[in-house]
This record gives sequence, structure tokens and C-alpha cells, in this order.
Amino acid sequence: MTIDMSISGLKQAYANGSLTPAQLLASIREQAAALADHNIWIHLLSEAEQQPYLTVLAGKDPATTPLWGVPFAIKDNIDLAGIPTTNGCKAFAYTPSESSQVVQQLIDAGALPVGKTNLDQFATGLNGTRSPHGACHNAFDFDYISGGSSAGSAVSVAKGLASFSLGTDTAGSGRVPACFNNLVGLKPTRGLLSASGLVPACRSLDCISIFALNSDDANSVLASAEGFDPRDGYSRANPFDNQPRHYGLRSGALKIGVLPAEQLQFFGDEQYAAAYATTLEQLRGDDIELITIDYTPFNEAALLLYEGPWVTERYLAAQPLIDDNPEAIFPVVREIIAPGGKPPATALFKAQYRLEELKKACHEQLAGLDCLLTPTAGRLFTIAEMLDEPVLRNSQLGYYTNYMNLVDMTSVAVPTAFTQAGLPFGVTLVGPAFSDRALLSIANRVQQRLPLPAGSSQLPQPALNNQAVGARDCIDVLVCGAHLDGLPLNWQLRERGAVLKRHTQTAPHYLMYALAGGPPFRPGLIRDEDAGVAIEVEIWSIPSSEFGSFVAGIPAPLGIGKVQIADGSWVCGFICEPYGLAGSSDISALGGWRAYMAQR
Amino acid sequence: MTIDMSISGLKQAYANGSLTPAQLLASIREQAAALADHNIWIHLLSEAEQQPYLTVLAGKDPATTPLWGVPFAIKDNIDLAGIPTTNGCKAFAYTPSESSQVVQQLIDAGALPVGKTNLDQFATGLNGTRSPHGACHNAFDFDYISGGSSAGSAVSVAKGLASFSLGTDTAGSGRVPACFNNLVGLKPTRGLLSASGLVPACRSLDCISIFALNSDDANSVLASAEGFDPRDGYSRANPFDNQPRHYGLRSGALKIGVLPAEQLQFFGDEQYAAAYATTLEQLRGDDIELITIDYTPFNEAALLLYEGPWVTERYLAAQPLIDDNPEAIFPVVREIIAPGGKPPATALFKAQYRLEELKKACHEQLAGLDCLLTPTAGRLFTIAEMLDEPVLRNSQLGYYTNYMNLVDMTSVAVPTAFTQAGLPFGVTLVGPAFSDRALLSIANRVQQRLPLPAGSSQLPQPALNNQAVGARDCIDVLVCGAHLDGLPLNWQLRERGAVLKRHTQTAPHYLMYALAGGPPFRPGLIRDEDAGVAIEVEIWSIPSSEFGSFVAGIPAPLGIGKVQIADGSWVCGFICEPYGLAGSSDISALGGWRAYMAQR
Repeated sequence: MTIDMSISGLKQAYANGSLTPAQLLASIREQAAALADHNIWIHLLSEAEQQPYLTVLAGKDPATTPLWGVPFAIKDNIDLAGIPTTNGCKAFAYTPSESSQVVQQLIDAGALPVGKTNLDQFATGLNGTRSPHGACHNAFDFDYISGGSSAGSAVSVAKGLASFSLGTDTAGSGRVPACFNNLVGLKPTRGLLSASGLVPACRSLDCISIFALNSDDANSVLASAEGFDPRDGYSRANPFDNQPRHYGLRSGALKIGVLPAEQLQFFGDEQYAAAYATTLEQLRGDDIELITIDYTPFNEAALLLYEGPWVTERYLAAQPLIDDNPEAIFPVVREIIAPGGKPPATALFKAQYRLEELKKACHEQLAGLDCLLTPTAGRLFTIAEMLDEPVLRNSQLGYYTNYMNLVDMTSVAVPTAFTQAGLPFGVTLVGPAFSDRALLSIANRVQQRLPLPAGSSQLPQPALNNQAVGARDCIDVLVCGAHLDGLPLNWQLRERGAVLKRHTQTAPHYLMYALAGGPPFRPGLIRDEDAGVAIEVEIWSIPSSEFGSFVAGIPAPLGIGKVQIADGSWVCGFICEPYGLAGSSDISALGGWRAYMAQR
Repeated sequence: MTIDMSISGLKQAYANGSLTPAQLLASIREQAAALADHNIWIHLLSEAEQQPYLTVLAGKDPATTPLWGVPFAIKDNIDLAGIPTTNGCKAFAYTPSESSQVVQQLIDAGALPVGKTNLDQFATGLNGTRSPHGACHNAFDFDYISGGSSAGSAVSVAKGLASFSLGTDTAGSGRVPACFNNLVGLKPTRGLLSASGLVPACRSLDCISIFALNSDDANSVLASAEGFDPRDGYSRANPFDNQPRHYGLRSGALKIGVLPAEQLQFFGDEQYAAAYATTLEQLRGDDIELITIDYTPFNEAALLLYEGPWVTERYLAAQPLIDDNPEAIFPVVREIIAPGGKPPATALFKAQYRLEELKKACHEQLAGLDCLLTPTAGRLFTIAEMLDEPVLRNSQLGYYTNYMNLVDMTSVAVPTAFTQAGLPFGVTLVGPAFSDRALLSIANRVQQRLPLPAGSSQLPQPALNNQAVGARDCIDVLVCGAHLDGLPLNWQLRERGAVLKRHTQTAPHYLMYALAGGPPFRPGLIRDEDAGVAIEVEIWSIPSSEFGSFVAGIPAPLGIGKVQIADGSWVCGFICEPYGLAGSSDISALGGWRAYMAQR
């Protein structure tokens, strides 16, 4: 039996009793053993090591525990209590007594750790071959690289050994392996997820990242994983926590930035070039406009990461091992990190000055766009090709990713196609810091338009419902006249980021009058417990911060008060002052404004 | 004649014809000559150099030009087109063809440049004695230091040679001289004012600062000086541009953080210690609560500035002069800057890591407070004392200021007292980035409670009207019942940052009913063009972003619609659905809700 490992799939299986978390974990352990030659795991949890998590889970209510029984994998540079953190290097290993902040939040949300995954040592690489545990193999073709550094984290999800996983992403380690294994890879805004309990690679740039089968799952995991952490110097509070318009569904027409042909690089991979072209072709349409931007500043920022003084951060993270016991480090990794001790502070300040200018230039390119879209990687190499040119080809893998954290942007890698050879390809959506949910919402649209199976299974994705909608701090407002969907004043709702929640009726206690005057023609809704009837209305969800200006724009004799709806509850909605009824006519018998306008 | 140099004072003098800009500039030139021994200026503009500005000004409408004819001084590390920028060092000098961005914005707003002012060379110092042009003398006592590095900028305003001035503030250079010369000194949020055309001291930390006679003037100058500049890598857009609650008047009770006695340092200056104690005594009251915080993380951050690798930025700013021609640099400045070439990038990253943690710790101390308040400086030294111990005493001057830009806070120095010896003393208000206007609003309250003459003149301050109130994007809302000032639901307005704009009446077309039920007892306002009367109401200004949740909290049968007021205009206000009048009684004859509640 193939289990639907999506979060909604598991929820359903648990709810209908066809599966228990213990059964699932047992099945995963069994399959993991069969996939041992993929080099996915550094430490797979034993049944005994998993038992305490199952025991705690049994005491939690699945209905209120968002990730109840959802198995996840953890990159081996992120702490899980009681299990060694090796960072891919035995000489570096230590056993933490506490889980990292993000892992603990996920466990508290009901998720079940499966194991610690293989990685490019010290998270230094984008390819997945730089490990003393052996190269991690692609989930679709054993001869190909998995991508890295979060190699095992990606392949574990693609292979159905976990529903989601944690990677890290400094230069692209949370995106490149997503692309190569048909996954969504969310590289969240720097500081949105705590780095407490994460081994640094470049401490000022590191992000814990999320691999998932689809954008809804990534969004669910994000909700449990994010949060300000005062113990982490680089943690940042989300300034949009109370501004849902920066979150919600991007439902209208989208403007998406793309690179001009001459700035695209596929490094000889014709099939990736073709997959990218197909992706754009399928996305372009009435509702998606593609606009060419200039990649020059992004590229210059990208080069700073490995060619500039940021390598010093990697040196600091590997000290004192690299000073005292350099042979303990994987050779290609050592050669990259060791020179990081040399640059002077003058070089770092100069590079930081230049970076601030480049940040501005990059953000300028994004102005007016919903997001930027690039290939996630230009070429998928075989393991043999990679080992042949380990530094050059690694830098080619970072062509579309290295700049991201330096210029403080956030991104989602989303699968969009398979090559002729049956290998996964995907694109990365890019936006400013804290636009994570907006990007996930766009990723959702992309996944719905270009449906692919989940991971390396043949299972279709579950119905995606875009959980990013109306996340927080919205107000329900009942409209009954010219603000109804498609009618002349509806734009006043949409331009404020409001979304249509549902069609319903008022409680059967209302009269509707067509007011004198117009256009715009307007109804007046009058509560009358005796003579009233049920009137057709719509409920829209509008960001609280935008509702005030909406209310202020309503002319007399209308206003916003409380209106009772069919289910008996009261919501904000249009009311009418008594004097406004002069010259009006009772249209209640028609049952609503649309019917009236149709016969008018 | 002593001219009232405040912006409102000049506006009035220009409006009533008692003064022209040309007369004012001539008078300033004359007074400046008389004060030559204070060493205020490096370059005082001649009549010929000023003429072009007067010519342009003549073509502008005073009514729509916010700083029309207001003279200002410019620290000599900020470019004014055609005049040498020396940074206090002849060998460094160059003549810019363009003014710096901020200077140009001020000129465009009608302000008139008076001259370039003396400074601690390379803006390195807090005392005003480190200049080849001679020590700048305090505006109140010739024997005392002016404070620095923005020495001449402060003294020029205190002496009435300019209405305001531009300084710069990396470590405290915009605050210490304000304290020593009875001025308001605004050290804006890093990046709020463009640094284009500013010679860097520590480029990642530098701010152009504003000296003014009072907080209203500082606020007016800020409005013309601020703005995002894509050419400046460190420029930042103000995220609160559309969120007036972060701007407006702090009119309710304030919680202000202060240091415990053992963390205060006056370095032997008993008179400053006494002035500080008096200030706190006068501020503490029903509406201001003083809460003790822990200064430890602030102090640790402060020490990073001169003892850590940030000196490297000063070295970069002085290169190649310091490498090729070190004798051209003022000796004490050279000794501070020269070692900045040495630290490695590892030291800088480590210091930046530590700084991020300290930032968190500092911001945690501010949580729940309206601001932090400290002395601006612990001691006012004589020039002789300063020259005696130029490095130690300079670092003492920075005890309350050095941390500010490192931890990304903003601050306003505000004068609060004179010592027994007649020397100025002041405190600094501190808040998170972009709280500039909130701090100015608190400074305004402090100045109103502790009135002092303006600068070194004997003139009283003009009536301060707190221009920070309701700066943008607020909605007027009419209240007539339990939301009136002091009544039970008024807190719903105040907690949303609303302020009372005025008492007025409705148009004479309304009836007021006391609705059935309660408490809370509530009125219903019903428009009736025939039988209606004028009803007492209040107009409150509420941030647009907060209005929505206010509206959503109003229970049926009330709501928010449009109500006509005495002047004939319509504003948002409480309306009532007709069914809600069941069981109510007409109280219109009483003229309003307060009268009804009084006799109830």
C-alpha cells in the first residue's frame, strides 16, 4: 500500500482509522531500510527512540493539534534532544539535551521526528555529495545528485519517509534539493524561524527551511515552526502579524518578473532549458503577466557570498576544528572554509556597504511585481559529473539562489515540470522579507495550474485549499447591494484585500428597500422581526486595518452596524438610517439586490 | 532687537512684514562676526553666496513652502553645493557640485543656508575641541565645551544665528551638544534621512541629525528632511508612513524607563546630578510613571563602538589620507582612527553576532514603555578639563549615547533644567527605530511641563502645538454617548490612539433617544430635518487602521454612518437603526448625552 503522506492525507487516514501513527512509523522504518543505499539518513530513530513521542502524542487531541502524527525528518545540523548532531562530521558531533526551538515547536504541534538526515558537511554545498556518509542519491534517478546541502531532508520527503522535513538554507540548500526531488521548498524570511539549536554555517544568513509535498503543507508547517525567539540574536518579529493583506490569497491578476533570455543559465542542460520554457508557456495567461527584469544586481550579490568575506562566517562556525584538526573535515569543504580566517574587517565593511546598495537595486527590480520567478537551478548533474568538478559545478547550482539571504528576500521553490528524461524541474518564487505567505499563495496557484504527482510517488496532490487565506485579524462584513461580487462597488472590497467567504441569507427578519436616487443604486436593509424575510447577502472577509477606510467611504444614509444572518449569528453589515427610506420602495419580495437589479 | 528665531516666530514676523529674509540674513552675518571667537563656523556664507537662495525663495509662496525663509546651519561634513566640505581637515577638503540630499530637500522647502559649521575633525569626538579651527565654545559659558562633534551646528542655533541646524550623530554628536546648549537634538532613526552627500564617519551607523529650539521645530524640519533615497545603501523607507498610531500625540499616561541609581554616572558633576534629580521630580506625576530598567546591555553595546571593530569604519572613511599623509590629521583623532585598519573580519563578525544579541536585550528593556529616559550627558566639562584628558573624558561623554545607533534606536535630546551655575542640562528620550514622532511628542510634553527659554536667548518658547498630532491617515469620528471623553466606553477610542479634536454640535436636524436597556446606557441619534435640534457631540481623530476594529465592536442597533455637524459638513458618526428605538425615550430637549446622564 502507498500511503498518502500529505498532511491532509494523513489526517484523513487517522480520522477514518485506516492508520495509526505507530503503524506509520513502523512502515517508514521498513521502507527506509530498503532505501539504505540512497544515504538519506545519518541517524534513523529506532522504535525505542520514537516511543516517547508516540506516548506524548496519545495524550493530545488530534482536532486541536495541527500536526498530530505527522512524521518529519531533520537535517543533521539541527538539534533533536538526545540524538547526536554531527553536521556531517564525526569529530564535530555532540549530543544536545534539548531540541532546537523549531523542532520543539513542531513536536509540540504533534509532529513525529523520524531521523537526522545526511547533508553536505557543515552545510557547505548545494549538491549532496560532500558527505563522509556517501553521496545522497536523487529520489528519481540513482545516478543523479539529490542537491544539497539539505540532501537527505529532501529525499526523505520525496521518497515518502516523512511528510515534511527541516533543512537549512544559507545559499540555496533548501531550494536546490526541492527542485531536484519534486518538492516545495520554503526558504523563509531570515529570522522568521528561530535559529536556536541550529549549528551555524553563516550565522548572519542561515535560515531553517521547510520541504513539503505541496504549498499547503509548507504553509501548515510554517505556522507551527515560525515565531520570534529572544534567545536568537537574528530572530525577527513578523511585522505583518497584524496585517493580513500581506498574507492572503493572491487571487487577482499577477505580475511576475522573469529574466531576459541572455541572463538565463542552464550550463548545457537542454532538458532543463526546455522544462523552464514549458513552465513559462503554461503559466502565462490572462491572469498572469510575465515582466522582464534585470538580474545584474542579484548576480553581483550572489558572487559576494562565496567570493567575498562571508566565508569568514563558515570559518568561525568550523573553528576550532579547522585550526586544530583540519584532516577531520571533508577535503572539498575544508578547502572552501579554511581561507575564511584571512580577510580583514576593512574588506567585510566594504562588502557590506556594497551589499546594502545591491539590496536596494534588487528590491527596485521587484517593485510593482507580485514576485520574481527564476529556474530554481540551471542544471541537474549526475553524481559523476558533480565529483568531477566539485567546486565549479556547485557554484553553477547557486546561480539562481546565492543572493537570496544576502539581499533579505524570501522564496518558495515549487515543482512545475518533468524533463523528457523524467527528472523533476521547478522554479523559485521570490519576494521581499515577510512575504512568505503571499509567495506560498502564488505557489499554490502554480501547483493547481501545473498539477504533478506528490514527491516520487504516483499519488496526485490532495485538493489544495490555500490555507494562506485570511490567516488573521480579519473582519467579516455582510454586503447586500452594490458591493456584491461583480457589482459596481465591489472593487472597494477587493482593493483592500478582502476575499469572498460565502453566500448566505440574512435571518428572516429583514426588509430590503431600493433607495431613491442613484446611480449607484443602493438598497437599504431594515430589521423588522415581524414582517421581515430572508435576504440574499454575501460575507466578505476584510483585513481589520482596511475596514476603517471602507466604513469611512460609505455615504449617508447607509452605515455599518450589526446584521443577523441565517445561522442566527450577527456580523458587521450594511444598515440604513430611517430618514433614508423617504421615496424608497420595498423590494423584499424579490429576495435580494441581484434579483431587483435583474428586473429593473 | 532680539529676533524670535523659532520657525513659528519667523513665520509671524515675515507675515506681519516686520522682517524680510534678506534682513534676517544680514543681521545673522553681523552677529556672527561679533561671535567670531566662539569658533562656530568653518565657512560663513557671504551675502553674494546667499543671494541665489534668496532669489529662488522670492518665487515661492510662503503659505505652501513649509520652511520659507528659515535660516539653517550645516555641519561641515555635509555637502552644500559650491562650498568646500572640509570635515574639519584642510587636506581632506573638496568642493561638491551638488548639495547633499537632505540639504537640497530643506532648501527646496524654503530654508536658507547660513554656513558650514565647526566640528570635531572627521566627526570623531563628542566634545568640540578636536578642530584645527579651534575649540568651539559653549553658548552659555565661554570656558565650557560646546559638546561635539556637531559643535558649531549646536552653538549657531543656541546663539540665534540659525533657526535650526544639521549635525550628524554616530555616537552621540547630535545629542551631547544639544544638552550643553539648551536645544532639542533629534537623532533620527538610522536611514530615515538620506546620507547621500554626507562624508561617512562609520557609514553603517551615521545619521544626519537635527538641532532645533523646540520639539515642534524639530518635527517640522524632520518632515522636510526625511525620505527614502535609493542612492543611499543605508536609507530605509519608514514602515509606519501609513500607520499614524506610531506618530501621534502621546496624550495619555506615560510609562517612562529610567536607570537605577547605581547605573547612573555623573563623573563628579554634582550639579548635573542635581539637575537630573530635579528633572525626574518634576516629571513624575499622575500622568507619568517612571519605571526602573537595566542599563547593562545598553552599556555593553556602547563599549563595542570605540573598543570594537567599528573603528574600522572610521579608518575606511579617512583612507587614503591616514595611510599617505597622517600628519594632516588632528593628533588625537589620528590616534583613535589609525588602529582601525587592523581588526580581522572574524572579529567583526563576532562583534556583530554579539551586537544582535544585545539589540534584543536592549529592546526587551523597552518593552511596554513609551520611552527610555536618561541624562543626555553625565558631565559638562570645561575646555581646559577636556584638553587635559581628551580620550577618557570623551568616552565619559558617550556613556548615555554610544549604544544608540548600534542597537537601532532613535532618540530626542530635550533640555529640562539649568544647573545652579546657569549651565544647560537635558535628558534623552529613547525608542525603537521609527518612533521618532512619538518621541518628539513626548519631548513636547516635557518642554511644556518644564518651560525654559529658547536657546541662549531670554525669549520664551512659542506656544507648542505638537505638530505630531494626527499627521496622516486619520478618520474623524463623531461620538455622542458613552464614548464621550471621560465616559465609560471612551477607552475604546483612546486605546486605539484616537485623540479628541473638538467639541461641537450636530446640525440642527437630529433627535436623541435614550435607548432601552443598559448599562451601558446608550443614545440613538436619528436624523430628522423637520423636528431635529442641535445635539452636543465630540469629534475624535482615530487612526484609519484602528477604525475598523472600533466599528466592528459596536453592538446593534447602533452603527457608524454619516452625521452632519454644525458647520454643515458630514463626518463618520454613530447612527441607529429604526427598530432600536422600541422602548426608547426622546431626550433631545436636554441637548445631549451628558445632560441626560447628569439628571438621570
